[in-house]
This record gives sequence, structure tokens and C-alpha cells, in this order.
Amino acid sequence: MAGSIFGTLFRISTFGESHGKGLGVIIDGCPAGIPIDEDFIQHELDRRRPGQSKIVTQRKEADTVQLLSGVFEGKSTGMPIGMIIMNSDARSHDYSHIADKFRPSHADYTFQAKYGTRDYRGGGRSSARETAARVAAGAIAKLFLQAHGISVFAYVSQVGNLQLSKSYEDIDLGLIESNPVRCPDPALAAEMETLIKAVRKDGDTIGGVVSAVVFGCPPGLGEPVFDKLHADLAKAVLSINACKGFEYGSGFAGVTMRGSEHNDAFYQDGGVVKTRTNHSGGIQGGISNGMPIYFRAAFKPVATIVQDQESVNEAGEAVTVAGKGRHDPCVLPRAVPIVEAMTALVLADHLLRQRSVGI
Amino acid sequence: MAGSIFGTLFRISTFGESHGKGLGVIIDGCPAGIPIDEDFIQHELDRRRPGQSKIVTQRKEADTVQLLSGVFEGKSTGMPIGMIIMNSDARSHDYSHIADKFRPSHADYTFQAKYGTRDYRGGGRSSARETAARVAAGAIAKLFLQAHGISVFAYVSQVGNLQLSKSYEDIDLGLIESNPVRCPDPALAAEMETLIKAVRKDGDTIGGVVSAVVFGCPPGLGEPVFDKLHADLAKAVLSINACKGFEYGSGFAGVTMRGSEHNDAFYQDGGVVKTRTNHSGGIQGGISNGMPIYFRAAFKPVATIVQDQESVNEAGEAVTVAGKGRHDPCVLPRAVPIVEAMTALVLADHLLRQRSVGI
Amino acid sequence: MAGSIFGTLFRISTFGESHGKGLGVIIDGCPAGIPIDEDFIQHELDRRRPGQSKIVTQRKEADTVQLLSGVFEGKSTGMPIGMIIMNSDARSHDYSHIADKFRPSHADYTFQAKYGTRDYRGGGRSSARETAARVAAGAIAKLFLQAHGISVFAYVSQVGNLQLSKSYEDIDLGLIESNPVRCPDPALAAEMETLIKAVRKDGDTIGGVVSAVVFGCPPGLGEPVFDKLHADLAKAVLSINACKGFEYGSGFAGVTMRGSEHNDAFYQDGGVVKTRTNHSGGIQGGISNGMPIYFRAAFKPVATIVQDQESVNEAGEAVTVAGKGRHDPCVLPRAVPIVEAMTALVLADHLLRQRSVGI
Amino acid sequence: MAGSIFGTLFRISTFGESHGKGLGVIIDGCPAGIPIDEDFIQHELDRRRPGQSKIVTQRKEADTVQLLSGVFEGKSTGMPIGMIIMNSDARSHDYSHIADKFRPSHADYTFQAKYGTRDYRGGGRSSARETAARVAAGAIAKLFLQAHGISVFAYVSQVGNLQLSKSYEDIDLGLIESNPVRCPDPALAAEMETLIKAVRKDGDTIGGVVSAVVFGCPPGLGEPVFDKLHADLAKAVLSINACKGFEYGSGFAGVTMRGSEHNDAFYQDGGVVKTRTNHSGGIQGGISNGMPIYFRAAFKPVATIVQDQESVNEAGEAVTVAGKGRHDPCVLPRAVPIVEAMTALVLADHLLRQRSVGI
Repeated sequence: MAGSIFGTLFRISTFGESHGKGLGVIIDGCPAGIPIDEDFIQHELDRRRPGQSKIVTQRKEADTVQLLSGVFEGKSTGMPIGMIIMNSDARSHDYSHIADKFRPSHADYTFQAKYGTRDYRGGGRSSARETAARVAAGAIAKLFLQAHGISVFAYVSQVGNLQLSKSYEDIDLGLIESNPVRCPDPALAAEMETLIKAVRKDGDTIGGVVSAVVFGCPPGLGEPVFDKLHADLAKAVLSINACKGFEYGSGFAGVTMRGSEHNDAFYQDGGVVKTRTNHSGGIQGGISNGMPIYFRAAFKPVATIVQDQESVNEAGEAVTVAGKGRHDPCVLPRAVPIVEAMTALVLADHLLRQRSVGI
Repeated sequence: MAGSIFGTLFRISTFGESHGKGLGVIIDGCPAGIPIDEDFIQHELDRRRPGQSKIVTQRKEADTVQLLSGVFEGKSTGMPIGMIIMNSDARSHDYSHIADKFRPSHADYTFQAKYGTRDYRGGGRSSARETAARVAAGAIAKLFLQAHGISVFAYVSQVGNLQLSKSYEDIDLGLIESNPVRCPDPALAAEMETLIKAVRKDGDTIGGVVSAVVFGCPPGLGEPVFDKLHADLAKAVLSINACKGFEYGSGFAGVTMRGSEHNDAFYQDGGVVKTRTNHSGGIQGGISNGMPIYFRAAFKPVATIVQDQESVNEAGEAVTVAGKGRHDPCVLPRAVPIVEAMTALVLADHLLRQRSVGI
Repeated sequence: MAGSIFGTLFRISTFGESHGKGLGVIIDGCPAGIPIDEDFIQHELDRRRPGQSKIVTQRKEADTVQLLSGVFEGKSTGMPIGMIIMNSDARSHDYSHIADKFRPSHADYTFQAKYGTRDYRGGGRSSARETAARVAAGAIAKLFLQAHGISVFAYVSQVGNLQLSKSYEDIDLGLIESNPVRCPDPALAAEMETLIKAVRKDGDTIGGVVSAVVFGCPPGLGEPVFDKLHADLAKAVLSINACKGFEYGSGFAGVTMRGSEHNDAFYQDGGVVKTRTNHSGGIQGGISNGMPIYFRAAFKPVATIVQDQESVNEAGEAVTVAGKGRHDPCVLPRAVPIVEAMTALVLADHLLRQRSVGI
Repeated sequence: MAGSIFGTLFRISTFGESHGKGLGVIIDGCPAGIPIDEDFIQHELDRRRPGQSKIVTQRKEADTVQLLSGVFEGKSTGMPIGMIIMNSDARSHDYSHIADKFRPSHADYTFQAKYGTRDYRGGGRSSARETAARVAAGAIAKLFLQAHGISVFAYVSQVGNLQLSKSYEDIDLGLIESNPVRCPDPALAAEMETLIKAVRKDGDTIGGVVSAVVFGCPPGLGEPVFDKLHADLAKAVLSINACKGFEYGSGFAGVTMRGSEHNDAFYQDGGVVKTRTNHSGGIQGGISNGMPIYFRAAFKPVATIVQDQESVNEAGEAVTVAGKGRHDPCVLPRAVPIVEAMTALVLADHLLRQRSVGI
């Protein structure tokens, strides 16, 4: 139970380090009979892949997935689905200069404190490279959700101070993939791209916000008390590297509202119960109510910068950490498929959990 | 696995409805040898109790805890600790008028959609009355943490637009309990109290923010990948009724910063590794780094208002939900001990988990 | 995770010591809509109750169950079901003479070694009194199974050398409750009763075997690999105090057979696939095949005897443990409802788990 | 949660089918700092490998393990350890003749009933080939146990009617690997080998018993109530293909004993508490007491025989299943390393769990 297993019924287990031989995931609990499109899994990995554009890290990885089990004649069998992604461009020598130094705001110090050892090459297991396994698993979850009419979208809604002011209702989700930033407002996306390039030129990094929306989720998903749907989504999303905050529905902005404004009035529309507003973010009492689910996730500027920084080494001595190595000036564009993957995994899990509630 | 079990090694299981016979909790995994002060448990429950001041619900409940097992000669034995709290002031007749109506932004509709039935009296299991069991369990977790020098504080830092601008470093935590709002700034607390009273007079409700800070947490708590310490804290806190958002360290505000500003430089101070700033919020790579852990949690205005509202009934017909019944005009003051309890439960769990990482 | 939680989806959590204030259980995951007959729960507890006949311990306990939550208008709501049983006849003073001595083949020494402390009164948590909570939970599981046409029977098939030679097919299950031994062969039951009385007169105890059979279990329950249905049954039954062995289907006797004899030929009978023999015990590859499930569980002679015994105390000094106190001369009659309860809990859990396997 | 995850803190997740691309395992929770000897892992796999002698299946598989993560500079890092074993000799065409037929006493019918589909090639996931992943994981568990002075031995103690009458105390464990049967009595082993060859010549199979013993286990492992050490061992061992029964200590034979004979008197020997007899099998109240742990596991004759058998197909029609294909005439010799692996995994898990019990 070292924290690399996620989910209850649609459960994944992952392994792999940034500069080890490879990464992988096992999905235990994928239902039988789901058409498994391997190209789609690869497509999702390609959206997360390094080197996909000029505003992300230039590490060269094909991130080719091999599916080893659990699929027979094109469909899932109900058996564990094992997938591996071998590493190719693992320049371990790049990291010898920081072997005994703790990079500021990285996990070097905390890993050392926790385990008494660490694989320092590229951050080892603490590298966001780990998320490739999540995206592969999330692709399978998406295929399962798709069979139930549920779709998950994420997009970049803020980079630094550049903020998309529109809600999920007012944007064209078809434009998300139209630009390397993955912001569905092309004009704003262009500004964001310019900003990211400027930041990279400074050897610096910048944060932002990913917004997500889920359509087609039936009422009834999520559990009362601890395993509320939004609580599980929060954990899932905050487990992604660099994520610092999560809010759903009205979120932090809702705290200044009165109950009489914030409450979402119910009405009936063609036999379906709906709400006039959606401050609840599609979730009430921890359970989906059939309205779109939406949330926002804050990502800090990534810690790897090309500037010298003050730090200490394993002996506790003051040292300078030299800025070096490939990195993402802004993690947001690549965070989009990861947020989608984690969201899909939570929904797939709760879709299965929901089956056990009635006689 | 209906979502009423929480934790991995320090694991709690709860039961109970707002207007049922009683509530309770079992802690499975509390270590042996911890001095168990029953008065302290009751003291924590009293901080959450209804009727404690004029700005909370006036339901009359003594919330007297009975400890039934797991303690022998004043200390925990390692066996499950069972505790119950019987309900006394359960006016079920108050709720017959909403037996088949869905109160806006409550869990009535989603429970009905999920289970095909519900205990409509006072919201049944979806009522925040359920959190009494969490607070009882959290008190035991606090006693365990105390034995390890870890202390947890929460306080109200915002009600409506009234916001405490100081950070955890600049406030006097000893003042939290000095006023019914549980805001450590007495002048601001008085303003908040006035606001809450005005809102109550309008038959309305208002939201706010609880801030929390943990001192004395050693480096090493939390797991890489999915069970990051902040991800588990987020899930725990967002599982509290009415919570809509969670951010730790720099949170949402950090997204506009550059990496070079945001990174927390390491230095050594008397043999202890510290950071000059604490944008990381005491957690790096999901693992505590020894600095104070701090986070903020957004609470919406509670859904129970004394105003007529548009809704539908079980048959899908348009109805008016009449405003009636006792309620909290602002959930924030009572949320403070609940946030502390959930935080303590997560830390106790990870303190135990941490013991398994080395040879 | 101190081992007092059982199950995956139909999950129970128990607490309580032999001589503490009371015992209890929370069922987390009982589906909604099951008619809950409280008299049936009490009836099951009465079958396990001390003092029910002359061949069991004479401790006086009414074992009256109080149902505190999760049931509304006579049916389960899907919420946790909390039940408590208060202790009444807890003569703690009976145990002061063994406060620092380790009773042979009891858990006194191992608890002390594990926890560094123990509630020595009546064995504390290690007492079979703990199983009352299992039986209460098992009663709810039986009500759920009953709604699916599944019935669970256990009976005593051996006491000492007195062995019932017939298989489950050749006995009248209606006779199980016709005698205090719970052996469905009245003549053999009378012999067993005589043997038990003789053993008790000697201040001694005797072991035996409980057999169990499940009718109406549909094909498909159980999981490949680790959570095989029989593996989960084995764990459940071996977790009962004094149980030393478990075999299902042909069991240990099957090891001398050839595959050609042992294999169960399939045939079709009215659209239903059946097997001509049932050496598989109703389970193939860990999954139920629709045939009756049957197994046998060995119970050792209980450790409490009214004879002086050699032992050591906490200081490691040689001491004599005096034979004293009430006890069961033969645990078998009271083990029957406990075996049924654990069997029902496993089946209820797998019935729910089975719902998640298909698209 | 499809049953391919095992353990609580030392947790494994496996995947792979008999005739798929490969098999694998992830260990999540292996402590940091354990020297990982890859040759030892391979050695353990070689003990389970097909084709290792004339009395096992002649399928050609090198079963070469690739270790992909979690080890750095020769030691475990605390991160998940991923291992894969690619299949080579997967003659899928061998199985087309049974694509729609249910082989008697195999899992063909139950998989079809459960999932509505199945990978019929060599039994897919229900094949004992799956256990290669367990043995790889078990090898790591053994390395961890070894660092704590705990050693696990299993051996064949019965084939058909040929039974080893000596207890674990009277045999030379060094002789286990001296013969292809893995029976530590060479003369008896020779008889067993002759019997197995005769059975194979008949196109038939035969069952037997594996005995196991654990030395060096400290007192305190195992949890009261549900997660008793022997209950977890039983589940682990009964989850192995073809296992039908489990007994520890006095087991089924103990049921005819009186308590006064069966109780294990305590005495002190050089500061260590020991028992004069060991009917308890090293476990009391579900917790290890420091004496050797021993148990026996029954294995049925494997279902694959080279004889025609009566069965039905997916349409429910009567068919003949022709005897064909490679198989093990007796699973016992290869079961030995699998029983050891499962035992080691349970002990490693409880060794970690034990760390959380004290303040």
C-alpha cells in the first residue's frame, strides 16, 4: 500500500520511474465486453507525450504502449489489463550533478526523508513521467464511459494571469485540440502561447488552471459521507504532479453568496429532473444529479527552472542547484489529458460502485 | 463499501441518521497504549454541538458520547474503539411536509435517484449530524498525534465577504475559541457575527472559508503518486457537508507566480532542513517536508433557508418547498472542529502508514 | 486496519470485548430495499447465545440486539446499519487470578507480545463473544441472500470420534435445530450430547466438525486468482475462534483420486448446466457453477478447561493456571450459526461484486 | 477489484493469460533498502517452470523475468516493483477444438457464466500459468523476510496414497530439492515419481498434499478477529489452482482430541516463551506465538486428462471433450514454490502490518 493503487472496483496499479526501464499499469476490474481500441489508447498517450509541441519539454519519447493482457478478439474479458511503455530517451548522466542535492520544491528532500534513499535520475518515481500510466488506464476508462454515454473534457482556462472568463456552457469544446495550449479560445490560446514562450526564454516556469466538464453522467454516482463523488475527484486531481487546488461548482467564489442565490431550483423537463442554475456543479450530497459536472484545478509553476537556486545537500550543507535539463515551462497543456484520465477513472469506478446499491 | 469507511490503517466506520436512534463510529487500527481522555472527546463534540451559541442551529442535543470498547485502564488496547451518541431531539414530524419533495441543493433528489428510497427526516444520513461521529473519532486521532508532538488547528478565515487577510504565521491561534465564530481576529469575528445574525434574520444563509494549519508534522508523511498527503487531506475535507473547494500552500493564487518566485529555497537551521518560504504548504511531492502544513477549504451557504423555493416532488410535479425548521445560518463556526477532525484522521493514518516504508 | 473489518462491498466492522460494555457491528454496503425483520436477527443471535442448553456455557446474556440506523419503514435504506448488543453478565472479578498469566492455547500470550498490553477479562477481544456481532451482521446478509433465493445451512457433522457419514444430499436439514447439538441425525446427536456431557464432567473439552451447504447460489460468484469464492469462504470460516481447517468439495479426501474419477462431467437439464458428480463442491476456478456449495470446517477442543495447567506469567516465571470459570465443553453447537453467518457474509459480498463484471 | 490484487501493505497486482503476450506483477509496498538479487527471483521461477523435469508439463517456457522498476543500485527504493515475463510457447491452435466446449472441472463454464466471454486459449487467466507472477513477487517477499530471519519451506508430503508420515521436525529440509517430486524423503520420492509416471501413461492425473513450515517468525504477526494469520494463509493457499483444503497445526486430526491433550503448555527457555507441544501450529488467537508455523494444503488431481469426457458446449448441447494437449500429471512438484510464494507474501504483509500496532 505504497500509494500506487487507485480506485475501488475499477482499480489501477502503476509502476515506473522517469529514467528506469519503463512504466506500466494494471487495470483490475475493467468489465468484460468493452471494445478496446488500441489506437485510441495511443492517441491519448500522444496528447500527454513530451515533445508534442514547442511549449513542452523536448525529451524524446514515443511513449508506445504495449497491451499485454485482458483483451481477446478486440474486447475486454474482465481480466486484468496489463500495459507497458518502455523508456527510450533516459539521459541518466544529466542528473549526476544533483545526485546528492535537493532541488527546491521538488520531492528530492521528502523522498530522502521518507525512504532513506531515492532514485535521483529525473526525479525517479516523483517525476510526472509516471502519469503516462494513468493516461493509458484513463483511456480504457473513457472507452467504458463512452459505452454509457458519458464524456469527459478538460481544457486550459488560465495561464499566469491570462484567464478564460467563459463558463463551460459558453465555449466550443471542439476547439480544445486546435492549439498547443489546449485552450478552447484560440485568441486567448495564442496569448498564452506567447507568454509560455517568454517564460521559457527566461528559464522560468508559470502556473495555470485546468477546467473540466463531464456530460452525460447519470444521477446516482458517488457515495454519501466519505466517498462523495467530488471528494474522490478532488483526490484524483490533486494527486497529479503540481496540482495545488480543486474546486467544483461555485467553488471558492460561492462562499460570498447567500443560500437563496446559491440554491439550484429543481424543475422537470420532459420527464427529466433538472436544475435552473448549476452552482452545485452536478453533484449534491456527494452524488451526481444528472447535470453537467464541472470543476477547476490549480497547477503551480513547475519546480524545474534553468536558474541557479539556493539549497542544501544530503549532508545538510548549503549548495547551489544549477539550472539544467529539459523541462516544461508550463505544465498546463500536458495536464489536460491527465486531468481527463483521472476524472474518467473516478467516474468508471463510481459507475461500477453504483451497481451494488439496490436489492 | 457504501462510502462510510475512511482511512487505511487508522480506519473509521460510521453510522447514523439525523433523526434515527443514534450515531456511532468504530475506529479500527488505533494503536495500543494511547491515554484516552474521555472528557477530551466530549469537549471536541461540544465544539461541534448544535445550540452552542446563538449563531448556530438551536436543535437541542447533548451529544453525549459513550465509549464501549477498545480502552482498558485508561489506555487504548489496539482493539476497535466503539463509540455511540444517542439522538434525543429528533422532531421527525417537522419533516412530513417534505417527505416527497426534493429540497433544492440538498441531497433529497440524489439519494432518491441512487437508492430508490430515502429517510427524509432531517435529511437522514445526508445531514451534517453525521459529522458528530467524525469528531468523536478525530478526538482519538488528536490524542495519538499529540503523543507525537503534532497539533492541528482550524479557524474561520472568511464569512461572506469578510476575509481575514493574515496568514497562519501572523495570527494568535489562542484566540480561535474566544468567540462563537471561531475567527482568531476578535474584531473581525464581531463583524462576522453581526453578518451571520443579519443573514439569519433574512431566513437566509452565508458561506465562508475555514483555514487550517498543522504544526509538528515530521518529514515523510504521505505517499508518492495517488495517496499524496494533500490529496488525502483534500478528499477528507471535501467529504464534509457543504465543502466546495480545497487549496493548500499557494493554492489558486500560486498559478500566477513564476517558478523562480514560487520555489521554496532550502536551508539548514540547527540540523533541521527548512525552507525560506512555504509556498509548498509543508508538502512536496505529496510528502510532508517538516514545515507547517496549511490549507483552506471553501464552504457554500447551507441549503436550508426559511424562504419558499421552487422544486419538484417524487412524481416530478412542480411544487413549492416551504422554508421551515431549525438550521445553521452559517456552517462555518461548527465546521472548524470537523475540519480539524478530518485533518487529524488523515495525519494519524499516514503516521501509521509511514512505519512500513523501511526495511 | 486492525483486522476487525471484513468484506469488500458488503463490508462489516465490529467492536467489543467479552467483559466490556458491549459489542456491535456496522454494515457498510447493505443494498437498499431489503425487508429487515428484527425478530429474525434476534432469532439468529439466540441460536448463538450462551446458556441456550445444558451443553454450552452457562454465562447469562440475553444478547438483545438494538438496531440504530440504516433501516426506515421496515426496509434497508442503503445506509450503514449499526447494531449494538450490551453486555450484562460480565463477571470481571472471575479473571483477576489470570491477570498476569498466559492461559495455554489462548491468545493471552500472543496479544501481550503483539500489543504490549491486553484486556485480560474473559480474553477481551479474543473471546468468541466477539462473534455475536458477526451473527447479527450475518442475519442481515441472510435476508439479502434470501431475496435472491440463496439459503445457507450448517450443522454439526462430527464431535470427537462420532462422525456423521452421510453427505449433505442424504440428510434432512429440517432436523438440524431438533436437538441441542445441531446434528441433523437425531440418534447420532444423542450420542454426541452424551459425549459432550461426559467431557464437561471431566472438566475437559472436545472438538468436532461443522459442515455447511449452500443452495440456490447462481453461477458466477467468486473472482479468478486471489479472491476465489472458496478462498474467501476459507478465510471467513478460519477466522472463527477455534477453527483449524477448511476443505470444500472433495477436500483432503480428493487427493487420492485420479483426475478421471474426480472430474465432474457436465450435462444439461432443462436448460440448466449441471454436473453429474459434485467433487468440485459447487465452485470451479474459484467461481460458483450453480451446483450446491459445500465445505467442512474443523474445530479444535476449546482451550478453557477446568484442570490445572503448566504455564508462564508476564515475567516469564513458571506458574500454574487453575481451571476455573464458565466455558463451553464443545464449541460445535454454537459454531453452527457463526459458520452460517460468515458464509452468508461472503456470499452477500460476492453477489454484489458480481454486478460489476459486465459492460 | 476483480480479484487480482492481494495483500494490504505488501500488496501485489498481477496480470496475464496462459496464451497471451505475457504475465506480470507489480508489488506496491515493498520497503526500501532490501537487497534485490535478480538471480534469486529467476531461481524461484525456475523451480515453478514447466519442462523442468519429466513429471511435469513439457510446455517450453524460459520464464525469464524482467525487472522494470523499484530497484536502484541493487536495492529496493520503496517504489512499486514491476516485473514481466513474456510468453513464448503459446500454441493457441491447440485449443481451437475446445473453443466452445466446457472442459469438465475446469473454469471454462464458470468464466463464461460470469463474464459472458472468455479467452479459451489454454484456460486464459484461469490457467496456473498465472502463478508465475506470484512466484516472482514471492521471491521479493522472501528476500524481505530473510532480512528479518524468517524462512519458508514447502514440500510434497503426499501423492495419491503415498504419504510422508513424519512431521516437519523429523525431516531434512535440505533434501526437498534433491528430487523432482520435492519430497524430502528420497525413498518415498522415488515411489511418488514412479506413481506419477504411471498416471501420466494412463493419460490421467493424481492429487496430493503440500506441507509447509515457517521458521523464525517472531511473536505478534496476525490480527485478531478477521485477519487472523492462519485465515490469511488459508485464503492465500486456497487461491492457488487445484487447492481444495487447508489445515494448520493439529488441523482436522485435532478434532478428536480433548482440550487437556491439545493445549500447548507454556514454558520459558532462555528468556524465550515456548510451548511444549505445538498443536497450535505456531498461531494462537490468530497471532504468531514464535513457534514454527506449519500447515498442510490438499491439491486435487488436475482436470486436464488425455481421455475423452462427457460435457456440454456453449449452446448447452451434449459434446465429447477429447483428451489432448500438454499437462501436468501431478501438480504437486510445481505447487511447492507457489505455496512458498503465497506464504511469504502473507508473512511479509503481516510483518509490515505489525509495525502499526503500538504508540
